[in-house]
Amino acid sequence: MKDKKMWGGRFGSTTAPLAVEYTLSVHFDRELYRHDIMGSQAHARMLAQQGVVSEEEAQSMVQGLNTILAEIESGSFPWRADLEDVHMNIESRLTELIGPAGKKLHTGRSRNDQVALSFRLFVADRLDQWSAALVELILALTKQAENHQSVRLPGFTHLQPAQPVSLSQHLLAYVQMFKRDHERIEDSLKRVKVSPLGAAALAGTTFPLNPEAVASQVKFESVFANSMDAVSDRDFVAEALFVASLIMMHLSRMCEEIILWATPNFGFVRLPDAYSTGSSIMPQKKNPDVAELMRGKTGRVYGDLIGILTVLKGLPLTYNRDLQEDKESFLDGDQTVRTSLQVMAGMISELIFDGLAMERSLKKGFLNATELADYLAAKGIPFREAHHITGRAVAFAETTGKALEDLTLEEFQSFSDRIDHDVYAILDYQAAVARRETCGGTGPKSVGHQIASITGWMEKKSGMVKEVG
Amino acid sequence: MKDKKMWGGRFGSTTAPLAVEYTLSVHFDRELYRHDIMGSQAHARMLAQQGVVSEEEAQSMVQGLNTILAEIESGSFPWRADLEDVHMNIESRLTELIGPAGKKLHTGRSRNDQVALSFRLFVADRLDQWSAALVELILALTKQAENHQSVRLPGFTHLQPAQPVSLSQHLLAYVQMFKRDHERIEDSLKRVKVSPLGAAALAGTTFPLNPEAVASQVKFESVFANSMDAVSDRDFVAEALFVASLIMMHLSRMCEEIILWATPNFGFVRLPDAYSTGSSIMPQKKNPDVAELMRGKTGRVYGDLIGILTVLKGLPLTYNRDLQEDKESFLDGDQTVRTSLQVMAGMISELIFDGLAMERSLKKGFLNATELADYLAAKGIPFREAHHITGRAVAFAETTGKALEDLTLEEFQSFSDRIDHDVYAILDYQAAVARRETCGGTGPKSVGHQIASITGWMEKKSGMVKEVG
Amino acid sequence: MKDKKMWGGRFGSTTAPLAVEYTLSVHFDRELYRHDIMGSQAHARMLAQQGVVSEEEAQSMVQGLNTILAEIESGSFPWRADLEDVHMNIESRLTELIGPAGKKLHTGRSRNDQVALSFRLFVADRLDQWSAALVELILALTKQAENHQSVRLPGFTHLQPAQPVSLSQHLLAYVQMFKRDHERIEDSLKRVKVSPLGAAALAGTTFPLNPEAVASQVKFESVFANSMDAVSDRDFVAEALFVASLIMMHLSRMCEEIILWATPNFGFVRLPDAYSTGSSIMPQKKNPDVAELMRGKTGRVYGDLIGILTVLKGLPLTYNRDLQEDKESFLDGDQTVRTSLQVMAGMISELIFDGLAMERSLKKGFLNATELADYLAAKGIPFREAHHITGRAVAFAETTGKALEDLTLEEFQSFSDRIDHDVYAILDYQAAVARRETCGGTGPKSVGHQIASITGWMEKKSGMVKEVG
Amino acid sequence: MKDKKMWGGRFGSTTAPLAVEYTLSVHFDRELYRHDIMGSQAHARMLAQQGVVSEEEAQSMVQGLNTILAEIESGSFPWRADLEDVHMNIESRLTELIGPAGKKLHTGRSRNDQVALSFRLFVADRLDQWSAALVELILALTKQAENHQSVRLPGFTHLQPAQPVSLSQHLLAYVQMFKRDHERIEDSLKRVKVSPLGAAALAGTTFPLNPEAVASQVKFESVFANSMDAVSDRDFVAEALFVASLIMMHLSRMCEEIILWATPNFGFVRLPDAYSTGSSIMPQKKNPDVAELMRGKTGRVYGDLIGILTVLKGLPLTYNRDLQEDKESFLDGDQTVRTSLQVMAGMISELIFDGLAMERSLKKGFLNATELADYLAAKGIPFREAHHITGRAVAFAETTGKALEDLTLEEFQSFSDRIDHDVYAILDYQAAVARRETCGGTGPKSVGHQIASITGWMEKKSGMVKEVG
Repeated sequence: MKDKKMWGGRFGSTTAPLAVEYTLSVHFDRELYRHDIMGSQAHARMLAQQGVVSEEEAQSMVQGLNTILAEIESGSFPWRADLEDVHMNIESRLTELIGPAGKKLHTGRSRNDQVALSFRLFVADRLDQWSAALVELILALTKQAENHQSVRLPGFTHLQPAQPVSLSQHLLAYVQMFKRDHERIEDSLKRVKVSPLGAAALAGTTFPLNPEAVASQVKFESVFANSMDAVSDRDFVAEALFVASLIMMHLSRMCEEIILWATPNFGFVRLPDAYSTGSSIMPQKKNPDVAELMRGKTGRVYGDLIGILTVLKGLPLTYNRDLQEDKESFLDGDQTVRTSLQVMAGMISELIFDGLAMERSLKKGFLNATELADYLAAKGIPFREAHHITGRAVAFAETTGKALEDLTLEEFQSFSDRIDHDVYAILDYQAAVARRETCGGTGPKSVGHQIASITGWMEKKSGMVKEVG
Repeated sequence: MKDKKMWGGRFGSTTAPLAVEYTLSVHFDRELYRHDIMGSQAHARMLAQQGVVSEEEAQSMVQGLNTILAEIESGSFPWRADLEDVHMNIESRLTELIGPAGKKLHTGRSRNDQVALSFRLFVADRLDQWSAALVELILALTKQAENHQSVRLPGFTHLQPAQPVSLSQHLLAYVQMFKRDHERIEDSLKRVKVSPLGAAALAGTTFPLNPEAVASQVKFESVFANSMDAVSDRDFVAEALFVASLIMMHLSRMCEEIILWATPNFGFVRLPDAYSTGSSIMPQKKNPDVAELMRGKTGRVYGDLIGILTVLKGLPLTYNRDLQEDKESFLDGDQTVRTSLQVMAGMISELIFDGLAMERSLKKGFLNATELADYLAAKGIPFREAHHITGRAVAFAETTGKALEDLTLEEFQSFSDRIDHDVYAILDYQAAVARRETCGGTGPKSVGHQIASITGWMEKKSGMVKEVG
Repeated sequence: MKDKKMWGGRFGSTTAPLAVEYTLSVHFDRELYRHDIMGSQAHARMLAQQGVVSEEEAQSMVQGLNTILAEIESGSFPWRADLEDVHMNIESRLTELIGPAGKKLHTGRSRNDQVALSFRLFVADRLDQWSAALVELILALTKQAENHQSVRLPGFTHLQPAQPVSLSQHLLAYVQMFKRDHERIEDSLKRVKVSPLGAAALAGTTFPLNPEAVASQVKFESVFANSMDAVSDRDFVAEALFVASLIMMHLSRMCEEIILWATPNFGFVRLPDAYSTGSSIMPQKKNPDVAELMRGKTGRVYGDLIGILTVLKGLPLTYNRDLQEDKESFLDGDQTVRTSLQVMAGMISELIFDGLAMERSLKKGFLNATELADYLAAKGIPFREAHHITGRAVAFAETTGKALEDLTLEEFQSFSDRIDHDVYAILDYQAAVARRETCGGTGPKSVGHQIASITGWMEKKSGMVKEVG
Repeated sequence: MKDKKMWGGRFGSTTAPLAVEYTLSVHFDRELYRHDIMGSQAHARMLAQQGVVSEEEAQSMVQGLNTILAEIESGSFPWRADLEDVHMNIESRLTELIGPAGKKLHTGRSRNDQVALSFRLFVADRLDQWSAALVELILALTKQAENHQSVRLPGFTHLQPAQPVSLSQHLLAYVQMFKRDHERIEDSLKRVKVSPLGAAALAGTTFPLNPEAVASQVKFESVFANSMDAVSDRDFVAEALFVASLIMMHLSRMCEEIILWATPNFGFVRLPDAYSTGSSIMPQKKNPDVAELMRGKTGRVYGDLIGILTVLKGLPLTYNRDLQEDKESFLDGDQTVRTSLQVMAGMISELIFDGLAMERSLKKGFLNATELADYLAAKGIPFREAHHITGRAVAFAETTGKALEDLTLEEFQSFSDRIDHDVYAILDYQAAVARRETCGGTGPKSVGHQIASITGWMEKKSGMVKEVG
């Protein structure tokens, strides 16, 4: 194995087999092959533009790399563990394919800036995929919101019934969360799409390179400002994993509600068979496994985040091998968040909402109590007292097993003589929802406005995603 | 205590003393007093604009709140633990001061949207302070960079000497990190400065409020889009604590290097007495306590981040009392990151760099070996072979206890006859630094360019910060 | 301020005010006063035993420290921020009280081993308190279990009704969790109760000390084995915070169920007024704030754990100032876990379980479906087919809105002619519970056995706790 | 695929392909094959003992499972992704091999208790492997300690030279850390080796099983006490990952020192070629990659820990699919900690310590300053003044570039006339080390005692490990 090492000159004995296996990365970093090739091709073209290699040499490199790309994608590429990582595998194969010119590809470049570029390209690519998946999920939610504008259910605070809301309003709350996630990705991408090529090992290069040309070829927005920072910066990985953590957190909230709503005690939702499983023992079971597992996977992505933060803490400049730990945590986080978004979009599209069960629940939780208090306040009773009167009416209704709207007028008047027949119209749940029409409220016009606004946003983003994709 | 509760109507017995103490928040949320008052004043003015209260009532509320502000800042405000939180304390005092009009302040508002607005105002305020502190630290670093352009030291990878760099280049690497932190704060602020007022408890309000008017008065950029999201969203806290985590991570890297450089074995830096401590037992000690403690405090902020992420995982809509845990983690993170930035700016300004010790170190680590390999390659030897020859020369020099530039020409030629007298100029450290002039490199022009660019940026940001502050 | 420093000799200028404030610890480590004094008194006595100081001097120190203890507990102790930490405050005061003899207390001791001892004493003390609080909570749970042996409710998997269980069985599941927590504390204490005194700064001491004597006086089990490890080991803090994390995790599971059971859709439990709160807007609300807040506080303790783990990662030997961060994270975790256990014990004692609501729920979830399948299997039908038949019966019952036991015999026989009248006895929920009598099962004898066993355990532990306390 | 599901009866449509892929676990839980088979064989034997199946049926099951074991280990087992997990794959294959009797294996057992048993067996197995690897590492450290008893180096606090210590003492500090890790594993195993079989789905079983018999067959120490706890308890995974986190933390501290000591500025250690790597660009480089990567992997294990803690937070009873996330985090943590321990043992064995470089460093850091202060104190000067005099002597020596022992007697006496010729003996580093002979100190007898003690411990543990393995 010794002969294959690029740095064997000063070394007397070979690396211990355990140490070789311990430091190996090709089994996971091979996922970056496309981005490594893309970066190398940009570097090759720039070398020719700057006169560092000839136009023919650059052509040969670019074509050799295309051949390698095809080999990898067809499964015929001869991966070698003894070459340690994806970069050495590709470089070594290039020299096999095109001869000595292949060795010139590394001119003015070191493993440090090469790895950083490949990884940034890869992360940017995946972030774009997250954005697209978020838009799909938002679309699924918005469609369901559009179709359920007249369905009402208890809005909860503290998991206690609070005030009636429309199902659309509830679903659109999640749309806002995922829209923020989308924005965070856009903000992060500015810091991912910075080309580090030209930083070389750590100090910059003595070759007359043109880093801007490489950046522009790989469609990156800017170029590193300081070579030492360029090779040791992994902020972008932490930032991507933080964005992923918030996405998973939002999904976990939605999963919690799906699980809750699917218990017979709520029964607000029926799980599509396609997204639930049964039990080998209990024949009646229909379990929300997918939602539970997704909720659980939140922990995994939080773990990936804390992992990279721990790696980076206290590292002196510049590159340290600790940084190799950046990839598996990102790969794991990416895989988790990407598939979770896709699965959730599918599940949401097929969820069946039970409007009747929701309506039944409205009557259980005194969700129109606020309306009664407001009604009393409107009749001139100080709100504090109105609140107190209502509290006693609720306590009475609870004892007798009734909903507020089922109390007789006499019963009502035993709490306050200001209460009159018009109270029943006020206590109507639909009316209560309809009265909340201020910006962002649960009223039907506000909901319509939200749907229109998010639809416009999606059209814009889908267009952009398509251009990118 | 029962009487003082706003919601006692339906409750038969009083809260258990342990439970009261457990749920209390006034001992920490009183820090938000200024922002609660600011939000309430904006709400009062808007209520008058919308005709919900009279102009006189609004005036009375605004002035009453000004009185309370003055009382709190002078220390004469009668804080009461039995009123649980800062909001109830202020509201209750307002009614004492201005009578029944005080109770109207809560019209169309609930504790849920009120708390969210106060906290967003507070967080936005602190993020602005972090930005200002980052600029101060960048200024301190840039000044030191400006003053040490001709000092050279070993650039490290893997904590092994790699290539010579200028001290300025090293310091400017940190500037880039803190500049990214500053950008992240700017991006986050867009999501902090969203007014939730008007969301009421969760469903919006039946009063004809104007949420945009409140947002504009408190200088926020936008208004919530969905009431259920508005009262349960704490993404902005997690995002602020993530930004804080990266700042602390960057500081911890700098601390690690200060601690390292201050050991006699390095001796690259002498700690200012003002930022180091001694030992009660060992009279020779001069310990970098401040840098160590700051490195340690990174863990605390990571903990604050994981804390809020854990709180938010799996929470159903909308407000749940778990969210009360958002404040102490942010307060702790804010206090830590803010003082750390200030202390580091002070410490950096007074650090004394020992250029001679750095220069001595350059000779120990064969930092000009790359230059020799490049020199051989330029003479037509394939880089791989050049690398090998250099490796053997280094091994020989190491054995004889010499630096490369101390080898005689004969010794050099025993490794390759292509080596000539001109090799000595090539091996010069200063020349090696000077040759790396591409974008972001360690060469003097590149460094000068970096300093000019960051200085321009700081001027712009300081201006903005001043306007804000 | 300079004069007061013990190590000022080699220092030219004073510490920067910001740095002083940044490194200050007396505002939180003063909580350790009792343990610092206890350790110092043990040290003083040992010094006399070994002839290092005279018996009179030791007496004077011990008495002086007793005076200080009384001063602190009466609130008259003159705390001074300029003396930085609790240890310097006490030492300085001792010299004021007893003159030069006070200075001899530090003989053969350094701040490093002194701090470690004080903190270990403190942590051991708090762990004992956690143990006692766990026993109280287990007692409360066991009492409720004892009182509800005949109450049945749906046992859930995947939050879907699975099989009927007794309420006692459900409560006793939590008892097992808290019992494991108690065991973990006992295991941890072995590693906390190790005296580091005698390690001095890091290398041991030249004085003829007797570390075992100190250990024995403070009732610690063993003595440090290596001085360098002794002053830099904070494993015990991480271990305590891990134990705390699991306790909070268990509490969070219980909180989740309390919150769930308190929604009207479940209604399994009525919150005691003493442990719930209302709403200033919605008069019908009775919110499980205490349970929610406790669930949220889990995040905080996880954060404390990850905080100390981050602090310790990559620290070179021996003492580093980063370690000062050990205290606040433990203090926060201790405060949280201790009060949470106490509050939960109180809340559990007063919870009112609604057996009727539980019984009603049993009929909604086909919880006897497993019984039907077992019945068919017992009649010779292969389990897989029995499962299938039951599945179809459940589907039919669901469509017609019936429970399984409400199907007519004809309806049953339309699925399988093996079903006979005796099926109704089998479908009875109480019988289903009663059939599961194997070790640890939900049957009444098994539950009785569990209660007896845990009662015996508690008696043993309460006795031990009393002896300790 | 529908037909293959065990629970298809009540389901109308098939699972969505994305959802199938999302919930799949066979690609990772197949690692548990041996433990699943072991548990099933114990269950089969117990079923026969209890008369639930015939002796022949049990024999057939046990032999069929042996065949499957052989198939898996020879690579001929037909793994099927559509069978979801390792348990279904084995069960389905068993029925293929032995016919209908295979289906009886699941009698009185559910997937919930089966999975819990398999996983507990697996975790117990891996913890035993960690214990063995810890003993190997302790052995390697102790051997190096034994061989370097006369080597002295600076002992550091705050990474500043503090007092001279022997290299043995330094290495033995790590031995104590790893010994504590070993103890923690032993403590944890008590809670891992608890058999959950017999808990069935959640409520216990109606079959007359004998859980103790299964426990005894798989060599577990005890049996679950409560069935609902048994199927939902994953404390043992969190505890194992916490133990792993502390091991990695200890390794990271050692890695930090190896990296530090390998820089030319320290030069205390020369890396074995077998555990270091070079650079493709810089021919002089010899990088401590293995130590760096191991330090980085600490973050990954912390992440695994926080992952499982997050998964468990707030989960209602009993089994929830979130728990499937327990395995990958443990598998990752196990793989990391196990190989890290092995690699570190190898690396430590081959490390070459440079005693001369250490000795040279002693002179740089005034490590005998404490000795001078003690010397003056012994001559009757109050320690505080002695400390001050020494401080000034150090300052003078520093200015003149001398070590303390290089000052002339006149120079010494200019600071205090109490200083005499005998000071030079006192300042000798070897003597300073030799004077610290109290328990756990750095003196040669104390070190010898430590080595003897740890050797005895290892012999005991190796014996035990051998018996286990």
